[in-house]
Amino acid sequence: MRALLSVSDKEGIVEFAKELENLGFELLSTGGTFKILKENGIKVVEVSDFTKSPELFEGRVKTLHPKIHGGILHKRNDENHVKQAKENGILGIDLVCVNLYPFKKTTIMSDDFDEIIENIDIGGPAMIRSAAKNYKDVMVICNPLDYEEVIEALKNEKNDEKFRLNLMIKAYEHTANYDSYIANYMNERFNGGFGASKFIVGQKVFDTKYGENPHQKGALYEFDSFFSTNFKALKGEASFNNLTDINAALNLASSFGDSPAVTIVKHGNPCGFAIKENLLQSYISALKCDNVSAYGGVVAINGTLDKTLAEKINEIYVEVIIAANVSKEALEVFEGKKRIKIFTQENPYLVRSFDAHDFKHIDGGFVYQNSDEVGNDELKNAKLVSKREASKEELQDLEIAMKIAAFTKSNNVVYVKNGAMVAIGMGMTSRIDAAKAAITKANEMGLDLQGCVLASEAFFPFRDSIDEASKVGVKAIVEPGGSIRDDEVIKAADEYAMALYFTGVRHFLH
Amino acid sequence: MRALLSVSDKEGIVEFAKELENLGFELLSTGGTFKILKENGIKVVEVSDFTKSPELFEGRVKTLHPKIHGGILHKRNDENHVKQAKENGILGIDLVCVNLYPFKKTTIMSDDFDEIIENIDIGGPAMIRSAAKNYKDVMVICNPLDYEEVIEALKNEKNDEKFRLNLMIKAYEHTANYDSYIANYMNERFNGGFGASKFIVGQKVFDTKYGENPHQKGALYEFDSFFSTNFKALKGEASFNNLTDINAALNLASSFGDSPAVTIVKHGNPCGFAIKENLLQSYISALKCDNVSAYGGVVAINGTLDKTLAEKINEIYVEVIIAANVSKEALEVFEGKKRIKIFTQENPYLVRSFDAHDFKHIDGGFVYQNSDEVGNDELKNAKLVSKREASKEELQDLEIAMKIAAFTKSNNVVYVKNGAMVAIGMGMTSRIDAAKAAITKANEMGLDLQGCVLASEAFFPFRDSIDEASKVGVKAIVEPGGSIRDDEVIKAADEYAMALYFTGVRHFLH
Repeated sequence: MRALLSVSDKEGIVEFAKELENLGFELLSTGGTFKILKENGIKVVEVSDFTKSPELFEGRVKTLHPKIHGGILHKRNDENHVKQAKENGILGIDLVCVNLYPFKKTTIMSDDFDEIIENIDIGGPAMIRSAAKNYKDVMVICNPLDYEEVIEALKNEKNDEKFRLNLMIKAYEHTANYDSYIANYMNERFNGGFGASKFIVGQKVFDTKYGENPHQKGALYEFDSFFSTNFKALKGEASFNNLTDINAALNLASSFGDSPAVTIVKHGNPCGFAIKENLLQSYISALKCDNVSAYGGVVAINGTLDKTLAEKINEIYVEVIIAANVSKEALEVFEGKKRIKIFTQENPYLVRSFDAHDFKHIDGGFVYQNSDEVGNDELKNAKLVSKREASKEELQDLEIAMKIAAFTKSNNVVYVKNGAMVAIGMGMTSRIDAAKAAITKANEMGLDLQGCVLASEAFFPFRDSIDEASKVGVKAIVEPGGSIRDDEVIKAADEYAMALYFTGVRHFLH
Repeated sequence: MRALLSVSDKEGIVEFAKELENLGFELLSTGGTFKILKENGIKVVEVSDFTKSPELFEGRVKTLHPKIHGGILHKRNDENHVKQAKENGILGIDLVCVNLYPFKKTTIMSDDFDEIIENIDIGGPAMIRSAAKNYKDVMVICNPLDYEEVIEALKNEKNDEKFRLNLMIKAYEHTANYDSYIANYMNERFNGGFGASKFIVGQKVFDTKYGENPHQKGALYEFDSFFSTNFKALKGEASFNNLTDINAALNLASSFGDSPAVTIVKHGNPCGFAIKENLLQSYISALKCDNVSAYGGVVAINGTLDKTLAEKINEIYVEVIIAANVSKEALEVFEGKKRIKIFTQENPYLVRSFDAHDFKHIDGGFVYQNSDEVGNDELKNAKLVSKREASKEELQDLEIAMKIAAFTKSNNVVYVKNGAMVAIGMGMTSRIDAAKAAITKANEMGLDLQGCVLASEAFFPFRDSIDEASKVGVKAIVEPGGSIRDDEVIKAADEYAMALYFTGVRHFLH
C-alpha cells in the first residue's frame, strides 16, 4: 500500500503519517510535508524520486505526472489497467491526503495579486479529483479532522466502498469550495461582485427539524463561521422559522450600539421594540405594543438576560430568546419549561454578521444584490421639509422608528413614542391600509399614540396617511420622500404642525 | 506559438483550429478532437507524441504530464523558468482550449453511477486551471462562444493581459461550476440533498437597474435557462422588485392548469385574483378586490393578452404585465406608454420553473429547504370536520382560496367568492388582525362578502377569526387544522352552519 501526503495545513500530519507507516504504507511526499515528515523520523520518498522527474518552476509542477495520476487513477480490478500500469512502471497510490494552498487566507491577508495568483493550487486539486474519481480503489482525505476516522477505518478494516464514497463527496465539496471562492474573489475584484457566474456557498451548521412547514426538509448553512461562533444553544433547538425570525430580531436589536434594546419578532416582522433605561423596562414596553402577537414570538435582547428579566419574560409564552448573554440564574428560571428555546452569543452586546450581499430565491434562479443598510447618519443628514422642527426627544424616537421601518416588510408604517414602538403596520399591499391597521390595533391595545412619531420605509404616495396620523396625535414623521405628491404631503404636515423629514433613502424589504 | 485543443463540445472547433493554424500556431490535441481536426485537413500533433508518453487507462491519463503542465505553467518572463524549461525539453503552450466531459448531461441522461463517475473530467480541469493561473502568458478558452472573440483579439493584437484576465475568470467560473455540480449531485444522490456543503450556483441573465432599493446594486441569476428561455421582454426592463413580484404572480397564476387565471401582485403579495369565463372577465374581477393596490402592480395572465384585455388594463397604471402570450395588437395598445413593462413566455399558458429547493439569506449564511407545493389533491383529501358539507361552487372557491393562501405571506386569510378573491389580509404578525384588515378593506371597496369562502395558510389558533368571518357571511372555510383549540373552531363553524375542512398541510410563507 502506498500513500501520498502533500498538505498545506500541517496540523496532525506527522501523527497521521506515523500511523500509516505502522499500517505498512509506503509514503510519498513533496516540499514542506516531506521535510516535516523526514524531520520526525518517518520514512518517506520524495515525489520527484518516485516519478524520476524533477520539481519544476518553483514547485508549480511537482505531481502533475503520469506516475502519480496513473498510480491513482488505474482501476485495480480491470485487467487491462493493471497490465498497462505494470508495462509503464506505474505503481499504485492507494491513499491521497492533500489539502490546498491557502488561497482564501491569502486574499484576506494580502492584496498583492501576484501572491494571490501564486496561491492558486494546481497540483493539489488535480490529485484530490483523481483520487475521488477512483474512490473505489483509493481513499482521499482533505481535512485533518478526518485523519483519526481514516486510521480507525484502516485498522478495523472498515474502509469499505461506502466509507470511501463519503470521502469522495468531501473531496469534490473541497475542490468546489476552492474554485467557487476563486471565481467569486475574481468577480469581486474585477467585476464589482456581479460576475457571469455567482456561487453562493454554505457549510452546514445543522439540519432543522423541518423546513418552513413540517412537510419540508430544512437546514442551516453558514458562509464562514458566524453561527458556529456566535450562536450557542442553551436550551432547545432552533427551527427553520426560528432562524429567520432570529435573524430579523437580532439585526434590529443590534442596530443601536450598546443601548438596552429589546425586539420581539413574529413571522419575520417586529411586533414589539423598545429602548428604555434598562433591559427589563425595554422588554415591558416592547411587550405592550402587541402582547397577543408576542405569544410564541422571538425576543432579542441586546445585553445580558438576568434573573429579573427572565422571570418577567416567563410570565407569558415566548418561543425563543436570543440574548447577547444569559446569566446562570436566568437560565434556571426556565428549567422545567419544555417549549422555550434560549440562545446566546456570549458577548456583552448582540453581534450581527453584516453580509455584503443579499439574495432571494425566485423559481428558476435568484436575485442578488448589495445588502441594504440604515446608516447611523441617515436621520442626521435628512432634510427638514416642514415648518416645525422636531424636538430632541422626537428625534430620538424618529431614529428608532426609522430603523424599525428598515427591518420590517414593506409596506410598513411604524409609530414610536418615548423610545418604544406603540403601533406598526406591515407587509401589506397598501400603505394607507397598513397605517389604518396599525392605528386600529393600537386602539384595541389601549395605547395612546398622542405625541408619537411616525416612520415609513418608503415615501407616502398621498397625504391620506398624514391625515390619519394627525387624528391620533403624531407629531413628527420621517420618510424617504420622492413622491410626485410630496408637496401635498408637506402641506398636510404643516397644516397639523408636524415636523417632517425626508431622508432620500428608501428601505423596501420584501 | 502552440495551442492545445481538447474539447468535449466539438462545436466550432474545426473553424477555430483553422484560424489558429493560419495564425501560425502549432496545434496539439487528443482523442476525439485530434481525430476531427485531422479529418478536416488540419495539421495537428497528438499529445502522446508531444509528451512521448502513451495515453493510459482508457484515456484516464493523457495530459497529466510535466511536458503539458510545464509547458502551460512556466513564466515566460522569468529567466530561471525559461532555463528550466529548456533543460527539461519543455516547450511553451500558449493557448489552451478545453471544455469538459459532460458530467451534468450524463447525470440527466443516465442513472448508471459507473458511467456518471467516468464522466468526471480530471485532465481537463487541471489544464484549464493551469492555463488560468498562468493567464499572464497563456490564453484559456472554455466556451465555443468565445472562439470568435479570441481569434479577433489574436488577429488585432488585442490579446493583452486584461483580455487574458477575463478569460482566466471565465475559466475558474467553469471549473467552479463543474465541481459545484458534482458535489451537489453527489449530495442529492447520497445525502438527500442536504450535504455538508451546499452550492447555490447561478449564471447571470442581466443586471437590474438597481437592487431592492436605488442604493443597492442588483442582478438576476438563473440555475439553468428558465429566464433565458421563458422570459422575453416585449417592452421595458424588469427591475429587481419586478422580478420577485413576477415570481409570485406567475407561480400563483400558473397553478390552475389552463384556467383563465389572472393575478395582480404588489410587494410580493396578491391583491387581486380571479378565474372567470375568460381572461377579460377574470381581470375585471381581480381588479375589484383592491384597485388601489393594483396601481403600479404586476399582472400575470394565464393565456394570451389580446387587444380587448390590453385596452382594459390600459385604463389604469399597472407597472408590469407578464402574459403567457401577447398578441401584436395588444402590444400596440401600449405604444407610447413609457412606464409599462410587458413580458411574455411565448406559450399557450404560463409556465413555472418549479425548483426542488428553496432558500433564504439570513445574515451569516442561509436556510435551505425542500420547496413547498400545494398539491392538486389537497382539498380533495381534506377532512370535513363540520356538520355541513360545502357545495360544489363553494368547493371550487375553496380550492382557489387555498392556493392563494399558499402563495401569500404569513399570516394570511383569503376570502373568495364566485371564482374571485374579494378580500385578503397578509403579512401580519397576528392572524385575527389580518382577518379584520381584510374585512375593513372589503367594506371600503364596497364588496359584498356574503356567501364567500375563507382560507388560511395555517390553523386558526382561536375561534375569533371564525366569529369575524360569520359576520360578513362566510359559508365555508379551509385551513390545515392542528390548533389545540380546533374543537372550539369546529364548534364555531357549526354554530354558523359553515362547512369546515382541515387539510393537515400548513403553508407558512415568509
